[in-house]
Amino acid sequence: MLRTVITGTGSYIPPFIQSNSDFAKHLFYSEEHIPLDKSPSEIIQKFKQITGIEERRYTTGELNTSDIGAIAAKMALKSSSVDPEQIDQLIVAHNFGNVIKSTIQTDAVPSLASRIKHALRIQNPNCVAYDILFGCPGWLQGLIQADAFFKAGIANKALIIGTETLSRVIDIYDRDSMIFSDGAGACVAEYKESNETGPGILGMTTQTYSTEELEYINMGMAFKPGSDPGIRFLKMKGRKVYEFAMKYVPAAMKECLEKSNVSIEQIKKIFIHQANEKMDQGIIKRLYQLYGITEYPENIMPMSIHWLGNSSVATIPTLFDLVLNNQVDPHELNPGDIILFASVGAGMNINAVCYRC
Amino acid sequence: MLRTVITGTGSYIPPFIQSNSDFAKHLFYSEEHIPLDKSPSEIIQKFKQITGIEERRYTTGELNTSDIGAIAAKMALKSSSVDPEQIDQLIVAHNFGNVIKSTIQTDAVPSLASRIKHALRIQNPNCVAYDILFGCPGWLQGLIQADAFFKAGIANKALIIGTETLSRVIDIYDRDSMIFSDGAGACVAEYKESNETGPGILGMTTQTYSTEELEYINMGMAFKPGSDPGIRFLKMKGRKVYEFAMKYVPAAMKECLEKSNVSIEQIKKIFIHQANEKMDQGIIKRLYQLYGITEYPENIMPMSIHWLGNSSVATIPTLFDLVLNNQVDPHELNPGDIILFASVGAGMNINAVCYRC
Repeated sequence: MLRTVITGTGSYIPPFIQSNSDFAKHLFYSEEHIPLDKSPSEIIQKFKQITGIEERRYTTGELNTSDIGAIAAKMALKSSSVDPEQIDQLIVAHNFGNVIKSTIQTDAVPSLASRIKHALRIQNPNCVAYDILFGCPGWLQGLIQADAFFKAGIANKALIIGTETLSRVIDIYDRDSMIFSDGAGACVAEYKESNETGPGILGMTTQTYSTEELEYINMGMAFKPGSDPGIRFLKMKGRKVYEFAMKYVPAAMKECLEKSNVSIEQIKKIFIHQANEKMDQGIIKRLYQLYGITEYPENIMPMSIHWLGNSSVATIPTLFDLVLNNQVDPHELNPGDIILFASVGAGMNINAVCYRC
Repeated sequence: MLRTVITGTGSYIPPFIQSNSDFAKHLFYSEEHIPLDKSPSEIIQKFKQITGIEERRYTTGELNTSDIGAIAAKMALKSSSVDPEQIDQLIVAHNFGNVIKSTIQTDAVPSLASRIKHALRIQNPNCVAYDILFGCPGWLQGLIQADAFFKAGIANKALIIGTETLSRVIDIYDRDSMIFSDGAGACVAEYKESNETGPGILGMTTQTYSTEELEYINMGMAFKPGSDPGIRFLKMKGRKVYEFAMKYVPAAMKECLEKSNVSIEQIKKIFIHQANEKMDQGIIKRLYQLYGITEYPENIMPMSIHWLGNSSVATIPTLFDLVLNNQVDPHELNPGDIILFASVGAGMNINAVCYRC
């Protein structure tokens, strides 16, 4: 039997560290353009408690979203040993295209996938390069689409990249600006001969909630009074997102495990989108509760949010790459380990993939 | 046997007519910021000769790309008789997201697919809504992806929308600004029982050329001297695009027919992306030449570019919808007719789909 197997991973860790204290010099405002009634240092303290974020990383001014995506892609190709000319589908997940530093326009013409294909010097015209926009779950959805292309017989090898420079679309007068970061992660997936207990994707689930959820994560004007309403920034209704995630993400993860015919006890690690530490812990807790388990296993959930922040589409492939390379103590993965990927973000979209290493 | 069958179509024709003479009040500049040495009226005359465009249409200031996409989608759903809650994949092709009139930012958070799902009041969370960026061939690629999802068993019904408001990303000092227009087109595709001679997709081809071709269609600063380099507009190297299209598109169309096991004589109509009349005629001419046919059949190629201009991802679904509704004299389609869709655009991307009505 054939399965979709991840045969290589790569990630780009941006060089500039922005610590929480770097934000202390800003005044933070509410959505109603009123200064928050706590001091920046109090706000930052509370922020850290909830999100777990101590620092985050930004890329250099010369590099754009497609550039850092290409760096991660190159590493993934190298670690897979696949000839780049053999890639059938080059899929890039992002949400803002390239945003040149200090400008407000986003740019996705040509697609970032074309630009990354160019940077990788792939000549083969049959390597189809396209971008997917799907909020933070875009990278995982790219993997799900690659799996579909394999099953449909239109591809055998895919390169799936998640890349974002959120430092360029944040409103620094909004405390949520501390959440977001830059980053890129990638993997090579191949449709390979496997067997009942062999490696590969075991099942998946995807959902889009776009009724009232449409406005939970969107673009809005800066919070500072007198800001230009024509210039918009990434905005999040944190409380709404949290409640939404608690309500729907654990159930989607459970559905994914059921489709995969995998029990909760078989799961070795959960790679969840690094959105917010408390939220991620809450999701995992509820997932286990759905199975009647009150305490979830220690070390089930590798985390990178403390030092990398939330880089949207890049968090899962980056974290997965770091764990595979034994860079997230004490986490490790071994052949045969069953893992669960899960993500939630703007749309609102949710997805999960169950995978055997 | 199961095939991907288009069971409904819809399109949005914007209300505002912008005639060529409306451009005569502008001075046109070269890429080097030098005024063109012909008068606007001479330039417009030549423009019409080459592109075939006499007028183009722009939408109203209140409507955004996702709004007009939703109008076309609603019509497609109605004409298909499919219950909107049964749609498994809602795929939206565009290249600029929503561009609010008189602002320069593009906005695709949340995705336009989520916004259109919202506008259609589809509640089913298992209706997965995502955006694809693939240049002008994006809508046709969305149809190809839907076909793959059907074959992979993850969907049975899809709604594929192409929507764009190019009037908001053009540089009016560039004569190429006369090419572009607003528009939206959509179709419902279903995986249905068919047979050897029944309706459905027969074959497809997709290619991405991103070596030197990366810069044939991209974003650049305005041509007027002294323009802000931080504000960029849709730019095209027309001569390069023309040469590229002549070299590769006919061969890709032929490959598609071969994969579909269809001879050139069986083709009743060719629905080609409305990019430029002379270029489209040149492509068709070369396609037939590849089969040793010097004169291509009369009325093989319905055209709408004269009055609708080039609305990117929207041209093919709009033209197909108009022909199905007998609005492009003398063109008509009947059950059993074999047709060929083909597109080329930023990336550079090329695709073709052979389809039996």
